[in-house]
Amino acid sequence: MDLENTLASHLSQISPPNMALAESAAKREASLAKPPGSLGRLEGLAIQLAAIQSSSKPRHENKLMVVCAADHGVVEEGVSPYPQSVTRQQIENFSKGGGAITTLCATAGVRVILLDVGVNFDFKDKPGVINKKIAFGTKNLAKGPAMTRDEAIQSVLTGIEVVLAQPHLDLVAAGEMGIGNTTPSSCICCVYTGLSPEAATGKGSGLDNDRIAHKVSVVRKALDLNKPNPVDPIDVLAKVGGLEIGAMTGVYLGAAIRRAGIVIDGFIAAAAATLAEKLSPGISRYFIAGHRSQEPAHQAFLDHLRLKPLLDLNMWLGEGSGAAIAMFVAQCAVNHFNEMRTLEEASIDDPVEV
Amino acid sequence: MDLENTLASHLSQISPPNMALAESAAKREASLAKPPGSLGRLEGLAIQLAAIQSSSKPRHENKLMVVCAADHGVVEEGVSPYPQSVTRQQIENFSKGGGAITTLCATAGVRVILLDVGVNFDFKDKPGVINKKIAFGTKNLAKGPAMTRDEAIQSVLTGIEVVLAQPHLDLVAAGEMGIGNTTPSSCICCVYTGLSPEAATGKGSGLDNDRIAHKVSVVRKALDLNKPNPVDPIDVLAKVGGLEIGAMTGVYLGAAIRRAGIVIDGFIAAAAATLAEKLSPGISRYFIAGHRSQEPAHQAFLDHLRLKPLLDLNMWLGEGSGAAIAMFVAQCAVNHFNEMRTLEEASIDDPVEV
Repeated sequence: MDLENTLASHLSQISPPNMALAESAAKREASLAKPPGSLGRLEGLAIQLAAIQSSSKPRHENKLMVVCAADHGVVEEGVSPYPQSVTRQQIENFSKGGGAITTLCATAGVRVILLDVGVNFDFKDKPGVINKKIAFGTKNLAKGPAMTRDEAIQSVLTGIEVVLAQPHLDLVAAGEMGIGNTTPSSCICCVYTGLSPEAATGKGSGLDNDRIAHKVSVVRKALDLNKPNPVDPIDVLAKVGGLEIGAMTGVYLGAAIRRAGIVIDGFIAAAAATLAEKLSPGISRYFIAGHRSQEPAHQAFLDHLRLKPLLDLNMWLGEGSGAAIAMFVAQCAVNHFNEMRTLEEASIDDPVEV
Repeated sequence: MDLENTLASHLSQISPPNMALAESAAKREASLAKPPGSLGRLEGLAIQLAAIQSSSKPRHENKLMVVCAADHGVVEEGVSPYPQSVTRQQIENFSKGGGAITTLCATAGVRVILLDVGVNFDFKDKPGVINKKIAFGTKNLAKGPAMTRDEAIQSVLTGIEVVLAQPHLDLVAAGEMGIGNTTPSSCICCVYTGLSPEAATGKGSGLDNDRIAHKVSVVRKALDLNKPNPVDPIDVLAKVGGLEIGAMTGVYLGAAIRRAGIVIDGFIAAAAATLAEKLSPGISRYFIAGHRSQEPAHQAFLDHLRLKPLLDLNMWLGEGSGAAIAMFVAQCAVNHFNEMRTLEEASIDDPVEV
């Protein structure tokens, strides 16, 4: 089977959340020993997870964060404050548990997989890093396509297959490490949300205003030169995307096949989530927006996907950090839903009529 | 020693957070393997907790939620949709682990204490409920003072002493159960934030608009009749407060004596926190606003205390529920701070100069 058919075959396995379960979960939620609605976002989240998992007793116990790593040829344009070597260095750091994402996942009880699909360094068989390298980074998207169509599909398939190879999954998120990866994300944002390059481009990992202006010109050049075709999300990924972005898209697709709740992190995760929605329309019903990133164009992705983030902690790190914290909120949603007693079980008197 | 002197003696033991520790913690935070500032609220929170705990390695392991329970004479005015019996029923429910607050605290690893200072029911020596009953509920504050001055001080002392009796504490929150307790909280809100009774009064546990209008008239009557003196917070508590509100104030004072971080829940917790700030000006530097409640006047308390909530999950349950979830955010703050490697330890290259 060729790559396109393999992808199509995976996509055909995604079905919508179970709305009958959502209805019965809403009834249980309304019966719990509290004023109806008073737990706010936790209530809808519990109902959503019951529908996604097609279970009257949703679960959170098996939480997975797949940190997808790759490099970007576009860094030669000076779009990041950090040198490309930092991608490799941070993956080394994560593999020893010393990163933000690894400490936050440990805190939230989330298992972390480090997935190399395109770092410009040979990790060989380094413990803790899954080697699925497709290339030693993308090409410079300001000078031509970031990758071939086959490489793009391969990156998505890698994400799918890594997820499908896991044992039981209840909640899944994708994180990332890839110096330069806000630039392809801004390109994807322009393609799908209609934002201008100026509006879609931010400071990334800390550019000053002059360098943001330069980054805007790189985004505009990439779009003018490559003319990505919005109706063909693989074309968009290949021309102006990134290998880790494709892998994240695959992680979301794989998680939906497995009927796990999908927690979306910040700007880059939202770019990958948007590609997943274009490949599998309706998959966004599996999405839980973890947090609002400080990268301003993140909001355009959230609006496009009709998602409202759970958290707003002024974060802009990426790596999956906001999603890791949000997984705890999902855990609260599941636990109150399963473990609270009902008004009847607790013999709570009814409201007084006046 | 009389009650006033006992309280004064406790208050004299509260000292400010250690600002030298805040400075050194800010330096460590800036050295960690991420762009400075990219973890947003987690960074300031770690620094605040280092200063509060006076430690270069802040802790979160010992988390305590004191759920303070009492009844309110003002329920005879029809200010709550629920009958008074629900206070007792929910405490019974909490004691069996079936409440929202107990499931959320279990999820967040927070130990729960149920403290009866004034429920209109004799729990006797019920397991899981600490019996420090001061009265079988307050009197109707729309007809006179809710309690005597001695009872008010006793409620605060009870909160302090319960906290001081605990083993090691890193993070402390106060929750509550008391049908009718948004009415005294609205009174306290008027006294200290300057809001009108209309602006300070909301739906509580679910009143409709007609009954909110009636509740506004009760709040106005209570203030006109009792004339609580803002410069004397005990007078405010006695005339228009509640026994559990006083105990919550005491929990905050006790936590500050113990140099623990204090996580504030919603509207009622903010009323108690405001009384604590009036009794011990500056204690608000120990405060972490856990979440923004849907009770509209909560924001006025937050503004008055100059606090910005960590979470906004559309919740309006009370019980301590928002604070329980926020304690996990504090845990993330502490863990990233202690466990991430520094840029130097992780051999991360410096930003590129242009």
